[in-house]
Amino acid sequence: MTSILILNGPNLNLLGTRQPDVYGTTTLADIEAMCRTRAKALSVDLAFQQDNSEGALIDAIHAARGTHHGIILNAGAYTHTSIALMDALSSVEIPAIELHLSNIHSREAFRHQSYISRVAIGIICGFGAQGYELALDAMVGHLERAS
Amino acid sequence: MTSILILNGPNLNLLGTRQPDVYGTTTLADIEAMCRTRAKALSVDLAFQQDNSEGALIDAIHAARGTHHGIILNAGAYTHTSIALMDALSSVEIPAIELHLSNIHSREAFRHQSYISRVAIGIICGFGAQGYELALDAMVGHLERAS
Amino acid sequence: MTSILILNGPNLNLLGTRQPDVYGTTTLADIEAMCRTRAKALSVDLAFQQDNSEGALIDAIHAARGTHHGIILNAGAYTHTSIALMDALSSVEIPAIELHLSNIHSREAFRHQSYISRVAIGIICGFGAQGYELALDAMVGHLERAS
Amino acid sequence: MTSILILNGPNLNLLGTRQPDVYGTTTLADIEAMCRTRAKALSVDLAFQQDNSEGALIDAIHAARGTHHGIILNAGAYTHTSIALMDALSSVEIPAIELHLSNIHSREAFRHQSYISRVAIGIICGFGAQGYELALDAMVGHLERAS
Amino acid sequence: MTSILILNGPNLNLLGTRQPDVYGTTTLADIEAMCRTRAKALSVDLAFQQDNSEGALIDAIHAARGTHHGIILNAGAYTHTSIALMDALSSVEIPAIELHLSNIHSREAFRHQSYISRVAIGIICGFGAQGYELALDAMVGHLERAS
Amino acid sequence: MTSILILNGPNLNLLGTRQPDVYGTTTLADIEAMCRTRAKALSVDLAFQQDNSEGALIDAIHAARGTHHGIILNAGAYTHTSIALMDALSSVEIPAIELHLSNIHSREAFRHQSYISRVAIGIICGFGAQGYELALDAMVGHLERAS
Amino acid sequence: MTSILILNGPNLNLLGTRQPDVYGTTTLADIEAMCRTRAKALSVDLAFQQDNSEGALIDAIHAARGTHHGIILNAGAYTHTSIALMDALSSVEIPAIELHLSNIHSREAFRHQSYISRVAIGIICGFGAQGYELALDAMVGHLERAS
Amino acid sequence: MTSILILNGPNLNLLGTRQPDVYGTTTLADIEAMCRTRAKALSVDLAFQQDNSEGALIDAIHAARGTHHGIILNAGAYTHTSIALMDALSSVEIPAIELHLSNIHSREAFRHQSYISRVAIGIICGFGAQGYELALDAMVGHLERAS
Amino acid sequence: MTSILILNGPNLNLLGTRQPDVYGTTTLADIEAMCRTRAKALSVDLAFQQDNSEGALIDAIHAARGTHHGIILNAGAYTHTSIALMDALSSVEIPAIELHLSNIHSREAFRHQSYISRVAIGIICGFGAQGYELALDAMVGHLERAS
Amino acid sequence: MTSILILNGPNLNLLGTRQPDVYGTTTLADIEAMCRTRAKALSVDLAFQQDNSEGALIDAIHAARGTHHGIILNAGAYTHTSIALMDALSSVEIPAIELHLSNIHSREAFRHQSYISRVAIGIICGFGAQGYELALDAMVGHLERAS
Amino acid sequence: MTSILILNGPNLNLLGTRQPDVYGTTTLADIEAMCRTRAKALSVDLAFQQDNSEGALIDAIHAARGTHHGIILNAGAYTHTSIALMDALSSVEIPAIELHLSNIHSREAFRHQSYISRVAIGIICGFGAQGYELALDAMVGHLERAS
Amino acid sequence: MTSILILNGPNLNLLGTRQPDVYGTTTLADIEAMCRTRAKALSVDLAFQQDNSEGALIDAIHAARGTHHGIILNAGAYTHTSIALMDALSSVEIPAIELHLSNIHSREAFRHQSYISRVAIGIICGFGAQGYELALDAMVGHLERAS
Repeated sequence: MTSILILNGPNLNLLGTRQPDVYGTTTLADIEAMCRTRAKALSVDLAFQQDNSEGALIDAIHAARGTHHGIILNAGAYTHTSIALMDALSSVEIPAIELHLSNIHSREAFRHQSYISRVAIGIICGFGAQGYELALDAMVGHLERAS
Repeated sequence: MTSILILNGPNLNLLGTRQPDVYGTTTLADIEAMCRTRAKALSVDLAFQQDNSEGALIDAIHAARGTHHGIILNAGAYTHTSIALMDALSSVEIPAIELHLSNIHSREAFRHQSYISRVAIGIICGFGAQGYELALDAMVGHLERAS
Repeated sequence: MTSILILNGPNLNLLGTRQPDVYGTTTLADIEAMCRTRAKALSVDLAFQQDNSEGALIDAIHAARGTHHGIILNAGAYTHTSIALMDALSSVEIPAIELHLSNIHSREAFRHQSYISRVAIGIICGFGAQGYELALDAMVGHLERAS
Repeated sequence: MTSILILNGPNLNLLGTRQPDVYGTTTLADIEAMCRTRAKALSVDLAFQQDNSEGALIDAIHAARGTHHGIILNAGAYTHTSIALMDALSSVEIPAIELHLSNIHSREAFRHQSYISRVAIGIICGFGAQGYELALDAMVGHLERAS
Repeated sequence: MTSILILNGPNLNLLGTRQPDVYGTTTLADIEAMCRTRAKALSVDLAFQQDNSEGALIDAIHAARGTHHGIILNAGAYTHTSIALMDALSSVEIPAIELHLSNIHSREAFRHQSYISRVAIGIICGFGAQGYELALDAMVGHLERAS
Repeated sequence: MTSILILNGPNLNLLGTRQPDVYGTTTLADIEAMCRTRAKALSVDLAFQQDNSEGALIDAIHAARGTHHGIILNAGAYTHTSIALMDALSSVEIPAIELHLSNIHSREAFRHQSYISRVAIGIICGFGAQGYELALDAMVGHLERAS
Repeated sequence: MTSILILNGPNLNLLGTRQPDVYGTTTLADIEAMCRTRAKALSVDLAFQQDNSEGALIDAIHAARGTHHGIILNAGAYTHTSIALMDALSSVEIPAIELHLSNIHSREAFRHQSYISRVAIGIICGFGAQGYELALDAMVGHLERAS
Repeated sequence: MTSILILNGPNLNLLGTRQPDVYGTTTLADIEAMCRTRAKALSVDLAFQQDNSEGALIDAIHAARGTHHGIILNAGAYTHTSIALMDALSSVEIPAIELHLSNIHSREAFRHQSYISRVAIGIICGFGAQGYELALDAMVGHLERAS
Repeated sequence: MTSILILNGPNLNLLGTRQPDVYGTTTLADIEAMCRTRAKALSVDLAFQQDNSEGALIDAIHAARGTHHGIILNAGAYTHTSIALMDALSSVEIPAIELHLSNIHSREAFRHQSYISRVAIGIICGFGAQGYELALDAMVGHLERAS
Repeated sequence: MTSILILNGPNLNLLGTRQPDVYGTTTLADIEAMCRTRAKALSVDLAFQQDNSEGALIDAIHAARGTHHGIILNAGAYTHTSIALMDALSSVEIPAIELHLSNIHSREAFRHQSYISRVAIGIICGFGAQGYELALDAMVGHLERAS
Repeated sequence: MTSILILNGPNLNLLGTRQPDVYGTTTLADIEAMCRTRAKALSVDLAFQQDNSEGALIDAIHAARGTHHGIILNAGAYTHTSIALMDALSSVEIPAIELHLSNIHSREAFRHQSYISRVAIGIICGFGAQGYELALDAMVGHLERAS
Repeated sequence: MTSILILNGPNLNLLGTRQPDVYGTTTLADIEAMCRTRAKALSVDLAFQQDNSEGALIDAIHAARGTHHGIILNAGAYTHTSIALMDALSSVEIPAIELHLSNIHSREAFRHQSYISRVAIGIICGFGAQGYELALDAMVGHLERAS
C-alpha cells in the first residue's frame, strides 16, 4: 500500500497561535486530522511529523527510505537556507512536493529563494491548510502516473 | 453559479507537440476536456482561453470583471516579464491562482522570477496537466472560505 | 495648427474603478474631457487614445509622424519593460513627455526604472489627473521655445 | 493666504553661467521673477531661496513649518545623496514637489537615484525654467484638492 | 524545395527613415528585394514579414511549422526582453539565425542581453542590409550540412 | 513578577577561553552571576540558558510563552543565517533585545547582516559583558513603558 | 573629572514633534534633562549639543579633543552617508558610542549601513530616549575598564 | 601520542547509496576502515564520527579540545552555510583540514562558497575516498612541521 | 589589391582535435584552405595566422598597419579578458570583424562578455568553419561600401 | 599673473596630529609654507584654504571664478560622496587637480570611488606632503601647455 | 611507464625569496628535488617546468599530449584570470590536479575565483611544499583507479 | 648611484600615433628623451623599456632586483587585469609608482579597477607626458625620505 510522509519544519508546531493574519487559526493537529481523512479517501497510508531541528528533519528524510513512497515537505524557514535538506531529499530518491501555507513569493525577498524547489517535483503555496489536501492529491496523482 | 476563467498564455497552444520531455504529450484541448469534467464535478462554470498576445491577455482579464469569480492563469513566459499583466490582475480584484505545468524553479534562473506571484493568492507548479485540476479545487476551496 | 497626441497604455482604460486609493475615481473619459478643454484654451488640436497592447502603442507612435507635433505618453507598466516603445519614440523624432498619475518613485522598486525617460524631453508624475493638464502646458511651452 | 516656498540647492546660484547647453542661459533671478509673476496670477504668497549648504537647506525646511503650505524643492546634487533632506521633508509634514531643470534620468546613472522622490507628492523634470511655473500650478492644484 | 522565413520585429517598418546614422537609408522593401534576388540565386523559397506586436511574431513562428525549413529573425528590441519569443523558437524546432543590422554589443548595455541567442544556431550583426544576404547564405549552408 | 529569559547561542559556552582579544576572559558563568545580581537589583526573575543547536534555541523561545515577559538573545553566529530563529521570535510575540559582546559591524562583512534585528525591539553590541547588564536595564525599561 | 559629549545630528531638534509613531513625543530638551540627571548620578560632566550641519558636527568632534573623554553620537541620517564624520571620530581618538532612538535595522534598507559603526566602540539602538541613559552607563563603564 | 578527529557532516551516513555517479559506492564504514589502517601506519590515534545536526557537530569540535591534535572536517552542505561551525573551529584553536569527496568547485555555484576555508589550514577535494588518506598524511605532516 | 588578415588566438591550433561536439572536426589548416579559395574568388589577398600568446597577437595586429585593409579576429578565450587586444585593434584603425566558431552566447556566462565587440564593426558566431567565409564576404562588402 | 587655489576639505586641519602612521607628522601650516616657497619659485600667486563644510567648499570653488586659473583640491572624505562638489568644479570651468596624501586605492573599498576624478584633469595621490609640490608643478605645466 | 608533468606558473621561480610568511623559504629547486624522490618511490616519470608566460604554459600543456598521463598545475595568478589555460587543459584531455601552496580561500577575495577548478579532477591547497607530494599521490591514485 | 626603471606596457610603443585626442602626439622616444634630461638633472640613472607581453614585463620587474631602486610602471591595459604583474611588484620589494598618461577614472568603467594600485606607493595619472617627469620627481623624493 502506498505510504506518504508529511514532514513539517520549524515553528509549525505553533500553528494556529502564531500570526493568525498570515497563517490562520487552524492548528497543526487540525491539519493532521484533515490529512488523515483525505489519505483514507485516497487509500494511502500517512505519516505526519514536525520538528524544529534541521538535523532531525534530515534524519526523518533518511528514515523514509524503504518506508514511504512520497514526501510532502513544509520546511518552513529552512526552505530558504538549508542546502543539507535539499541534499537529503536528493539522496533518498523519493519524490517530494514542496508545500507552504502562505504565498512565500508575496512576502519578504529572502523568502523567495528556495533550495527545496531545485529537487521537488512540484510546489504548492498560498492555500493555507487546503494546500495539504492538494499536495496529497498531487502526490497520489504523481505516483500513479509514474507507476 | 460560480464561474472560473482559465487563461493560458504564449506558446501553450503548441502543448503536446512542444518539448515533450519537459511538458508531456497532452494537448491543450485534452486539458480543457479534463477541466470541464472537473468543473462539472465541482458544480462551477468554466471559461477556457489561450492567447499569444500580452495585450489580448490583459483584455481577457479586464473582461472577467462581473463575469468570473476566480482566474487561473498560466501566463507562460509572460510570467517573468509582464508588469502589465500583474497590474491587470490587481485592477480587476478577482482572486487569481498562478499555474505552471513544469517546476519553473528547477529550470533557468530567469524563470525563477514571477510578477504574477506578487498578486496571486497561491501558486501551483510542476504537476503537468494535473495542476489544472488542483488549481480548480484550490480556487473553489478559496471561494468557499471567502464567502 | 499644433497637434498633440495623448497616448495611454495598459490598464488605464480601467481608471476610476481600479485601486482608487492609488489612482483616484476620475475615469479616463473624465481626463479626456479635461484635456480637450485645456487644449481648446491653448489653441491646439488633440488626439486621445488608449490601448492595452504594446504593438498597438508602437503603431500609434509610428502613425503620429506627419500628424502630431508632440506626444504625451502614459505608458503604464510598459514604461518599465519596453525597449521597443522607447525605440518607437526615438524613431519618429517627435518630442515626447513621460507622464504618470502616481509618483512611481515612491512605489515598488521595479517601477523606478523607465526606458521612456531616456528619450523623453521631460517627466511629470504624481499629480493625478492634473498631470495631464501640466503635460499639455509643458508640451506647448516646449514647442514654442523650439520654434 | 496660501504661501509656497521654492527652495534651491547647491550650484543653482550659478544658473545661466553654468553649462548652458544643459541648463540654458536663464539666471536664478530670472526664474524668481517668473515665479513671482505666476504666484501673483495664482494669488499665492511666495518665498524663494537658494543655499549651497545641506545643513542650511534643512534649516530652511524646518523654518517652513507654520509659515508655508507647500515646498517646491530643487535639491540639485543633494537629491541623490541626502537622506537628511528627505528626513527633514517628512518631519515637517508639508507637501513637497521635487523639481529638476534637466531630465535627470537621461544623464549619468548616479543621477537616476533620488531620496527626495520617496517623500515628494510629485516630480517635474526636464522642462528648464518652465518647470518652476508647472510646479507652482501643480502645488496650487494639490492644495486645492487637499483642502 | 527549401523555404526560409525572414521575420522582422518592432520598428523595422520605419527602416530607412529612422536614425540613418545607425541603420542607413535602405528601406525594408529594399532589403526584401535584395533577399529575393539572393534567394533566387540560392534556389530557395522566401517568405518575408514584419510586425510590431510580440504576439503576432509568436503566431508567425508557430505558423512556420510544416511550411519553412529555417527562420532568420531580426527581433529588434524584443531580442532583449522576450522570453516568449525564445520559447516560440524552441517550440517549433526550426533552425533559427539571429540577425541585427547594427552591432548591438557596441550600443547601450541593455542591448547586450539576448534571449534569442540562447536558441539560435548562429548570430550575425553589424553589417547593415548585407547581413540579410549573409544570413541567407549561412542558413542554406546550415541546412545543407544538416541534410 | 516580571521574568526575563537570557538566551545564548552557539560557541558562547567557550567564552573566556575563546579568542580573548575579541571577547575578553570573562566566562559565561561570570556573566550569569553578574546578570543574577542585576536582576535582583531590578526585582525581576531571570532564566539564563545556552545551547549550540538552532533547533534547541527555537524550542527555548517557544517555551518562553506564558513564562517570560522579555527575551534577551545573543544568537552568536546564527544571528546572520537563521530565518527560523527570527520566525520563532515573531511567533511567540514576546519583546526581544538583540545582544552581541563585540561590535559586529566592525568585523567581517558577513557578520553585518542580522535576521534578528528585523524583529528585535532594540540592539546592544560592543560593550562586552557589560552589555548584558545594559540589556536587562533596557528590557525592564521597555516593559515598564509598555505596561 | 570625567566629561562626556552627547552630540545630536540633523532633524533631532524636531524631536517630539516629528513622526511620533516612530520617535515618541519626548523632546530633545526632555532628553537633555534626563541625561543631566543621569550624569549627576554617575558623577560625570556632560555637554549636550545638536546641529543640522555635517561640517558643524565635525567641528564639534574636533573641539572635543582635550575637553571630553567620551562621545555619544546620534548622527541621524548622516550615519548612513558621512565618511567625513567617521574620519573625524577616528582622528580625535576619543572613544565613541553610536546611538539611535529607533531600531534602524528594522527600517528602510538604506538605513542599515553605518559608517559610524566602523569606528564606534559599541552601538545602542531601538530604546527611544532610554537609549541615552544606557549609552551614558555604557560610556562610564567603558572608561572605567580602560583606566 | 598524536590523536586526530575525522568529523563528517550531514548526509554522509548515506554514502555508497547516494548519487553513486557523484560519490561512488564506498560506504562511510569502508572509509573509516581505510582511515584506521592509514592511522596505524602513521602511528596516530583516530576518532571517526558522523552527525546530521549542526549543533552536534559544534559540540564535537568543542569536545576535541584537550583530546585531539588535529581535525579533518567534511562538513557536507554545512560548509556553505554555517558561520557557527567556522567559529567553533577558530574557538578551539586546533588545526583543521577541510575535506570534500567531490570537487565542489565544479558543481552548483552555491557550493563554491565555504566558511570552513577561512579557518582551515588546507583543503583537499575531488579525490573521493582517497582524499581521507591524503588528509591524514597532510595533517601528520603539518603537526610534525609545527612541533 | 585589397589584403585581409585572418588572425586566430589561443588553442585554435588544436582545432579538429578539441571538443569536436562544440567545434567539429575541421582543422585550422582545412579552414585556411577554404579561406584561400574564397579569397581568390573575391579577388583579395589573404594572410592567415595563429598564436597562443596575447603579446604575439598584439604584435600581429600592430604589424597589419600599412599591410592589410581588414582584420578578421577569432581571439578565442582572450575575447573575454583582453583589454590590450581591444586597444591594439583601436590603435591600428583597421576595420575588424569578431568571429567565433561556436555561439558564445549559448555557452558559459563568462563567454558572453567580449571586449572585442566594443571595437569590431560586426560579429559572426555559431556557424563553425562557414563563419570564416561569411566573414570574408562581410569584410569585402564593408570595404567596398567604405571606399 | 597666474593664480592657483589650493583647497582642503574635512579633517585636514588636524593634519600632523591625526593617524600619523597614515598621514605623517607634517601639519597643514607646514604644507602651506612648502607650497608658498614652491609657488614663489614657479612665479605664481597662491591661495590656500581649508574648511570642514561641504557647502563652504562649494562657495570657495564658486568664488574662484575670475580670481584663480587652477584649483588643487584635496577634498578628503567628500571625494567619495559629494556629487555637489563635482558639479561645482564643472560649473566654474577652471582646471582642477585631485590630490590625496595617502594612496586611497590601497585603503578601504569605499575610498576607491571618487566623484572628483570625473572632472579633474589629473590625480596625484600617495606621496604625502610632496604631493602638493607635484600638483603645483603639474598645474603650472598644464596651464602653460593650454595657453 | 606512467609520466606526470608538474607545471608551475608566474612568479613561482622566485619561491623561497618571495613573501616567506605566506610561502615559506623552500625554493622551487627544493620542491623539484622532493618531487623527484617521491616520483621514484611511486615508480613514475616526472617532468617539472616553470614559466612566467601564459602562452608558454599553454604550449607546455599542448605538448603534454602523448607524453604525460597527468598534469599537476600550480597556475599562480593565472588561476584567477585565464580562460585560455582552462581551455588548454580541457583540450588535451589529460587529467589535471589544481595545486596551490597557500590556502587561496583565506586570502584576498579575487583569489577565491578559479577557472582551473572548473576542469580539474581535484584541488589541493594550503599545505605548502608538502602539497606537491600529496598531489603526486592523488594523481597516481586517480590513474590507478581509472585504468 | 640611484637607478630607476621606467617600464611601459602594451600598445605604448604606438604612442603618438594612437588615439591622439586621448594621448597626444608625443612618441615614446620623445618621452624617453624628456625622462633622460630630467634624470640627469636629478642625478639618477635611468632605464627605459617597453614590451607588449605580460610575461616579458614580469621578467623585467624580476630583473630589476639588485639593479634598480625604484620602478615607474605604466602597465597600460594590463593594469586592470593582471594579478601576476601585481605579484611580481610585491615579490621584488622595490618601491613602485603607478603611472597613466590619461585620467583612467574619467574613461570607461573597466579602466577604474587597478591591481597595480594595491601595491604601488603612489599614483599619477592624467598629465600626459609631463606625468613621467612628476613620477621621477616623486620617486626621488620617496627614496630620499626612505634612506
